[in-house]
Amino acid sequence: MVNRAQASLEHLYKVFTMPEGQDSKLAQIEQHLSDNLSDFLSQHIVASETPLEKLEAMFDGADLPEQPQFVSEHAESLLSNLVAHSVNTYSPRFIGHMTSALPYFHLSLAKLLVGLNQNPVKIETSKAFTPMERQTIGLMHNLVYRGSEGFYTNYLHSAAHSLGAFCSGGTIANITGLWVARNQALKATGDFPGVESAGLFAAMKHYDYNDLVILCSQRAHYSLSKAMNVLGLGKRNLIAVASDGHTLCPVATQEVGLSEIQKGNKVLAIVGIAGTTETGHIDPLNALADVAQVLDCHFHVDAAWGGATLFSDTHRHLLNGIERADSVTLDPHKQMYVPMGSGMVLFRNPDDSNAVRHHANYILRQGSKDLGSTTLEGSRNGSSMMLYAAIHIFGRQGYQLLIDQSIEKANAFAELIEKHPMFELTTEPTLCILTYRVCPAHLVGESLSEAQMQKLNRLNVRVQKRQRESGRSFVSRTRLKLSQYQGQETSVFRVILANPLTSKEDLIAILDEQALLAQQLDDDHVLSEG
Amino acid sequence: MVNRAQASLEHLYKVFTMPEGQDSKLAQIEQHLSDNLSDFLSQHIVASETPLEKLEAMFDGADLPEQPQFVSEHAESLLSNLVAHSVNTYSPRFIGHMTSALPYFHLSLAKLLVGLNQNPVKIETSKAFTPMERQTIGLMHNLVYRGSEGFYTNYLHSAAHSLGAFCSGGTIANITGLWVARNQALKATGDFPGVESAGLFAAMKHYDYNDLVILCSQRAHYSLSKAMNVLGLGKRNLIAVASDGHTLCPVATQEVGLSEIQKGNKVLAIVGIAGTTETGHIDPLNALADVAQVLDCHFHVDAAWGGATLFSDTHRHLLNGIERADSVTLDPHKQMYVPMGSGMVLFRNPDDSNAVRHHANYILRQGSKDLGSTTLEGSRNGSSMMLYAAIHIFGRQGYQLLIDQSIEKANAFAELIEKHPMFELTTEPTLCILTYRVCPAHLVGESLSEAQMQKLNRLNVRVQKRQRESGRSFVSRTRLKLSQYQGQETSVFRVILANPLTSKEDLIAILDEQALLAQQLDDDHVLSEG
Repeated sequence: MVNRAQASLEHLYKVFTMPEGQDSKLAQIEQHLSDNLSDFLSQHIVASETPLEKLEAMFDGADLPEQPQFVSEHAESLLSNLVAHSVNTYSPRFIGHMTSALPYFHLSLAKLLVGLNQNPVKIETSKAFTPMERQTIGLMHNLVYRGSEGFYTNYLHSAAHSLGAFCSGGTIANITGLWVARNQALKATGDFPGVESAGLFAAMKHYDYNDLVILCSQRAHYSLSKAMNVLGLGKRNLIAVASDGHTLCPVATQEVGLSEIQKGNKVLAIVGIAGTTETGHIDPLNALADVAQVLDCHFHVDAAWGGATLFSDTHRHLLNGIERADSVTLDPHKQMYVPMGSGMVLFRNPDDSNAVRHHANYILRQGSKDLGSTTLEGSRNGSSMMLYAAIHIFGRQGYQLLIDQSIEKANAFAELIEKHPMFELTTEPTLCILTYRVCPAHLVGESLSEAQMQKLNRLNVRVQKRQRESGRSFVSRTRLKLSQYQGQETSVFRVILANPLTSKEDLIAILDEQALLAQQLDDDHVLSEG
Repeated sequence: MVNRAQASLEHLYKVFTMPEGQDSKLAQIEQHLSDNLSDFLSQHIVASETPLEKLEAMFDGADLPEQPQFVSEHAESLLSNLVAHSVNTYSPRFIGHMTSALPYFHLSLAKLLVGLNQNPVKIETSKAFTPMERQTIGLMHNLVYRGSEGFYTNYLHSAAHSLGAFCSGGTIANITGLWVARNQALKATGDFPGVESAGLFAAMKHYDYNDLVILCSQRAHYSLSKAMNVLGLGKRNLIAVASDGHTLCPVATQEVGLSEIQKGNKVLAIVGIAGTTETGHIDPLNALADVAQVLDCHFHVDAAWGGATLFSDTHRHLLNGIERADSVTLDPHKQMYVPMGSGMVLFRNPDDSNAVRHHANYILRQGSKDLGSTTLEGSRNGSSMMLYAAIHIFGRQGYQLLIDQSIEKANAFAELIEKHPMFELTTEPTLCILTYRVCPAHLVGESLSEAQMQKLNRLNVRVQKRQRESGRSFVSRTRLKLSQYQGQETSVFRVILANPLTSKEDLIAILDEQALLAQQLDDDHVLSEG
């Protein structure tokens, strides 16, 4: 039987008042994390992947533990059950997702954050965290919109305005941006109290629209479809317009928009993507801003991935036009190297957030500067502190260096792939994302039969899975419809080169491993026969 | 001029690869937090309140820092600007809000969480965090619904089901619960693809309802009104039904519901509150579940505050009927003593979450067990680990002891107030929340003129503010309409006795301070004259 701690008040008070001893398991874990994060992770995370069923067996059943457990005992079990089977996001060879190594200082800040345990929903539970978060939003607003000094003097700490909202991630940010767009399009007028009060059904009747639609590209993030669902707009009213290769075509967007208007529909918004999740492409933001003017609609830019590119004077121009967006989503937990749980929506016009402002009696009183008045979330943690700190510790120039080296690395990797006889670069790097696949040189760009394509797809899926399972490195995979293959579904590897610790040697090792795996797993002989 | 760090790649790599030195400022902060959290907070947080304008001046302007800053230098400025002006949530005399002292082990876990930086949106970026979070949801589901062992065997790790969703807080949980209710009430049928696809306008026409309404009490949390707004239901369609004193009246609820149905409206849901934010009252859940059956509607229980009472065999009965709710909101960052950012919605029926299920190509593939398929949030952090750990370290019995002592303490405080000649207990403690006010004995329960009431209100507001500003202790305040004062607006102090470190001596000291302040601030002579 497990030796359980005693359920006494005395014992319980101890966990609140007595620090863990210096030799305790948790203190050891902390020390190891502080001394050498990479070593901690390599030592505790098992290399080869454990099947999900086995992991589920470790977290099975729903019987609440009756008795307390000693902290150190629980820490041991966390190490062996949970930590051992985590993803090593710090590893320079895990280049398949958008989480990367983090700087060391966030470890300490995380501890400070929990020690303070502020709640920025209102000033009374967060004090300085409120102006700190407002300033952090302002700094990012300035990065995107470059407002005048007077603009920020007027609005940064204004009780009647908000430059944006900090939130847990890009999905909440996108929902918030489109929520504002919806409420503005169906705002109060005359006797009509606005969609926020009357609801969508009454609002649509009042405004006499058949439907509200939003236009975006086929590569838009799934959170937009989620936003359509939750906001009551309906997923089928998110219209995926034809692309110019990989980006949203402004001409087609305007045509579709005008035809929707002719049908009696209202175009609520155009969403431009600045760094698609799958391939990193950036929609032509300036041209789309023009179209939004023609269609008289909201222009939202989802820059969750690519927004941090604005720090780089070298590459900032790729996002030209973003400053014309009505709202912009950013995800600092991606290329700004802050821990998971850091998203943000920004509004060009500081009045816009009033479209979703709300009040309550004991909290968020009228005229207060409580952040909760204009956020989708209520109580939440003060993790904007980590973003505030990161902006100051890296500085604009620091972020520029990080962004620039990521893009350079992606270009270098693309070159390696193109030179390799067993791989095909399927999408060129935009920012630091690229896709490629195992494909022998003699088949690259050829007209492939459906059977050949299926064999290649199967092989690529198997290589990706086996590589992941073996635990030395990780790329993700997706399916793309590529023009060079007449829109056939093509399974590809997807890599994101945002981890500053990833070296050229790492990239060569990843390709070598994949080439070897491809040869081992090529049961269909697609590599030799074609 | 500030000495800036040099913006070089070499310097930047260091923050990712070189731990902070043992003598660094951050290491000192960490050590102090670990050694004595209470001392760290008392030493660094300034006692008397700094006016908001001064805090804003510390976080003014939106000019992005150009150059990097040394970590230690930034840590110094965080201490003096941000930490110094935070709220001391650990203090046993800050009993005005729902954040309390946390146990020490969360400091270490916070650091571990950031070191791992998992993203539970999908298994590929979180591995064991996915089954861990599912089990944690299952444990809480079992606490509320007490399903059979076979039930959890079937559903805990089922790809086609979900017992609930972990999220950043109660607001997102409430929105998610009502989102599910909305999508189920307007689901796909025949040729109609459901509100999730067609949108609310088409759905209302298809189902031929005039309006959708939700019924709740006047004490419902403001997040419900926010949910009405975001879901497109409209805030005016949240109907605040008359109360039985402090709780929702089931008879009135049924009457209002039937009359809405007669008007051609659909009652979407009844929301019962298990622990109102203002006064801690619990709606009659069993009776409301009956009414929900009569009205054929969803029954949601917002147990963000009171849910943890279920751990106590002594007080669990207060929430009888919660097991009949279709969905339940819990906020572990309240009475479960985990850090801010821990909310949850639970579904009695594991099929229900499919009403909001979504898929995408490169992520959340069909048939996957990715948690992101049924959550409102997308990428987020793995803080369910802290809840998992807390459940095991406290055990059910541990939480029972904590809950029971909170309620006992509230009763003891109520007795102190009632005996005190200068105070009036305005609402009895339910769970560990009570309200009271400065009111001389000869006026308690008397029929007060509007002028007298206004004088008393003014005095109470001044006492609360001055006490907060002086920084020794903190109670919050709200305005209630009380039957003993014929529904006149009454300003009251609100206290929440969830901090296990709060002693009887603390409570006496708080009353003493208030009594003294009341005498000092009684410019209207309401204490003497009446």
